[in-house]
Amino acid sequence: MTDHTHEIAHQGDPGLDRLLFFSDGVFAIAITLLSIELHVPHGWDGSFAGLMNASWKMLGAFAISFAVIGVLWNAHRRCFLKMTRFTSGVFVLNLFVLAGIALMPFATSLLYENPHGGDAFLIYLSLVALTGVAQGLTYGYAAFVADVIRPRQHAMMRFSAFLMQTLMPGLCCGLTLLALGRAPLWIVIGLAVSLTLLISFRVFAAKRFGPAAVAA
Amino acid sequence: MTDHTHEIAHQGDPGLDRLLFFSDGVFAIAITLLSIELHVPHGWDGSFAGLMNASWKMLGAFAISFAVIGVLWNAHRRCFLKMTRFTSGVFVLNLFVLAGIALMPFATSLLYENPHGGDAFLIYLSLVALTGVAQGLTYGYAAFVADVIRPRQHAMMRFSAFLMQTLMPGLCCGLTLLALGRAPLWIVIGLAVSLTLLISFRVFAAKRFGPAAVAA
Amino acid sequence: MTDHTHEIAHQGDPGLDRLLFFSDGVFAIAITLLSIELHVPHGWDGSFAGLMNASWKMLGAFAISFAVIGVLWNAHRRCFLKMTRFTSGVFVLNLFVLAGIALMPFATSLLYENPHGGDAFLIYLSLVALTGVAQGLTYGYAAFVADVIRPRQHAMMRFSAFLMQTLMPGLCCGLTLLALGRAPLWIVIGLAVSLTLLISFRVFAAKRFGPAAVAA
Amino acid sequence: MTDHTHEIAHQGDPGLDRLLFFSDGVFAIAITLLSIELHVPHGWDGSFAGLMNASWKMLGAFAISFAVIGVLWNAHRRCFLKMTRFTSGVFVLNLFVLAGIALMPFATSLLYENPHGGDAFLIYLSLVALTGVAQGLTYGYAAFVADVIRPRQHAMMRFSAFLMQTLMPGLCCGLTLLALGRAPLWIVIGLAVSLTLLISFRVFAAKRFGPAAVAA
Repeated sequence: MTDHTHEIAHQGDPGLDRLLFFSDGVFAIAITLLSIELHVPHGWDGSFAGLMNASWKMLGAFAISFAVIGVLWNAHRRCFLKMTRFTSGVFVLNLFVLAGIALMPFATSLLYENPHGGDAFLIYLSLVALTGVAQGLTYGYAAFVADVIRPRQHAMMRFSAFLMQTLMPGLCCGLTLLALGRAPLWIVIGLAVSLTLLISFRVFAAKRFGPAAVAA
Repeated sequence: MTDHTHEIAHQGDPGLDRLLFFSDGVFAIAITLLSIELHVPHGWDGSFAGLMNASWKMLGAFAISFAVIGVLWNAHRRCFLKMTRFTSGVFVLNLFVLAGIALMPFATSLLYENPHGGDAFLIYLSLVALTGVAQGLTYGYAAFVADVIRPRQHAMMRFSAFLMQTLMPGLCCGLTLLALGRAPLWIVIGLAVSLTLLISFRVFAAKRFGPAAVAA
Repeated sequence: MTDHTHEIAHQGDPGLDRLLFFSDGVFAIAITLLSIELHVPHGWDGSFAGLMNASWKMLGAFAISFAVIGVLWNAHRRCFLKMTRFTSGVFVLNLFVLAGIALMPFATSLLYENPHGGDAFLIYLSLVALTGVAQGLTYGYAAFVADVIRPRQHAMMRFSAFLMQTLMPGLCCGLTLLALGRAPLWIVIGLAVSLTLLISFRVFAAKRFGPAAVAA
Repeated sequence: MTDHTHEIAHQGDPGLDRLLFFSDGVFAIAITLLSIELHVPHGWDGSFAGLMNASWKMLGAFAISFAVIGVLWNAHRRCFLKMTRFTSGVFVLNLFVLAGIALMPFATSLLYENPHGGDAFLIYLSLVALTGVAQGLTYGYAAFVADVIRPRQHAMMRFSAFLMQTLMPGLCCGLTLLALGRAPLWIVIGLAVSLTLLISFRVFAAKRFGPAAVAA
């Protein structure tokens, strides 16, 4: 039943199809351009150990950003999964998401050229968090303002989905980066608690207001 | 009814589908390549303020060009929305649009390396305006010469759409850049008046010759 | 009738669809990367005339290559228009076409960094001609060996299409470059005559063995 | 019959369609970016021989990597050919495949900047082999864990397909590179024997457990 609904969802609007092609293109280019900043280190002695010594920071930043863009792509897929029509508001908000994605290679290069004690972690984290917020607003606009998500769910379900889209990327990425960077314990714990609360709320909403609950 | 028409519009011609994939690819690459010119400033001290001081011009040019390419993509989407077939003329004119888009990253780098009193603003503006003209000609060719826009509208409607496609990008971008650059007031006012006249004409044509008016 | 056939042609094989997405992606990236070699000239004085003086060679090479890739894309579209299935042979030959396209930005940079009396024109021309040959072989393989072009045409029609695909890009591009470069008259005339013979043969074949002639 | 099955396979899930667009985008960009490292040699005298002398290593590495990415794309196409749904596990494993593809241009530049006696061959080979393993795991997950391959085949058939996907890229690429690099004979022979055993097992499985055998 659900599968059948998906099938129908995307087929009414060539404008939405093109928006998704365009967005997938931007994601694919940004994720591949991450590797364009990887250069053979000057005076490389040819050994694997030498490469790792000189480039582990670059390769680490590449790996983190690759995962981040991958996760954001998946969030983007979910966000547009049940959208039925192109609307200008969604287009404009989605443009902010794409701007965040297009800036990821730049933010990644900040990350590994970060001087000691610099703000690069914070800038990188802010970019991921803001991209998440833009994604959340795109979903929120589609669900509440333009009302183009079908089948339409209970407002509480839509609100929890909006909250997940908005806050997850920043929280997850923050947790990872802070854990890697040995941040003060209370910040890491604070983030983990927020994340747990967010997921609990989503699960609660799904139980209480989800299709199964409503049907029952 | 309208939605149904859209659905049919795109499905007759694989050639047109490929033209749209190809065009979306060029748009997506150009918009993402904008960020490739963003570099970590030499001797960056690691602070956010330091980054902004050194790079605000680059980031500003990035933001403007991102918005411009986004808007031109949306105009491109509208231009091809009701086209029913691939024709060679549309392909050739569309190639000029794509050339304009592909040159945007270069024009953006001119914009922020602009020496004092240089022509970079004018060159950038001309590129946007010419891309708009190429887009307008593409639509005009499709609507008047090849006659592949369906449902076919009154000639006055097609003419006003052609005028909008042709002049809007240049006028809007010019207005923004001039306002940012504190241009002489009379130029800004002149552009705003032209824009108002253009939109009024479009609204008038839609009322007088649009589908509703004809049906009445 | 013909339109209906097109519609059917592409819908049987997701493998062929993906091959076309992949190819369109390579074409779109190569055509956009042409502009990545355009740089603001060192010590630019900010004027349009200064930019043209310093960069007209680069901009000219960009324009020629943009047109060449556009034309080759259109030939690629025609080549695959009536293909019905993915076959490994077509995939491998198409890979050679894509390699030629991916090398175009490199060949373009050879073109404008060409020292006096160098071979850059010849290298560029050979690349375009070889890409055309690869395209022709792709079509020839599909039409004669794999036999996946539908509706199947008379062998003479297929042969003339194969010849056009193979020789046109090299002949046209050669004619343009040689005319621009003030080549010896007899070479230009030779190329023009070959081109005329080729087109005449195609028109003759279409009249004698085309669908209309066969039906009559 | 088989063709009809393909047709159905891909049409249930827009999520899977977007995953394939996204992946094709990454493949297309990586294969085109290979050529971005090709530069006009310093002090080029303009002759073809001069270009070849200075750049044959770069052009050779470009050709090998182009073929490798092409072959991996084809393996990716086969891997997803009969998949019916998007699943998160497939998405995550596919992300590792894409990371391997995105790193190919970097590995290629290692290959031709390889100092004498360096590990670049081994690093390059490991990357190709690991990408193959990731591809194999993607297929294995889809076939055995998520069970989204239709029509479902005998476990032995799925296992042999998984083994082919996993080991082929590394074996083939290793064989080529070692043959080119004049490796000790016993290594080349060892690889060739492994390859032969792998293919024999696949052929045996197809005969014994394939659709024809089961139907008989």
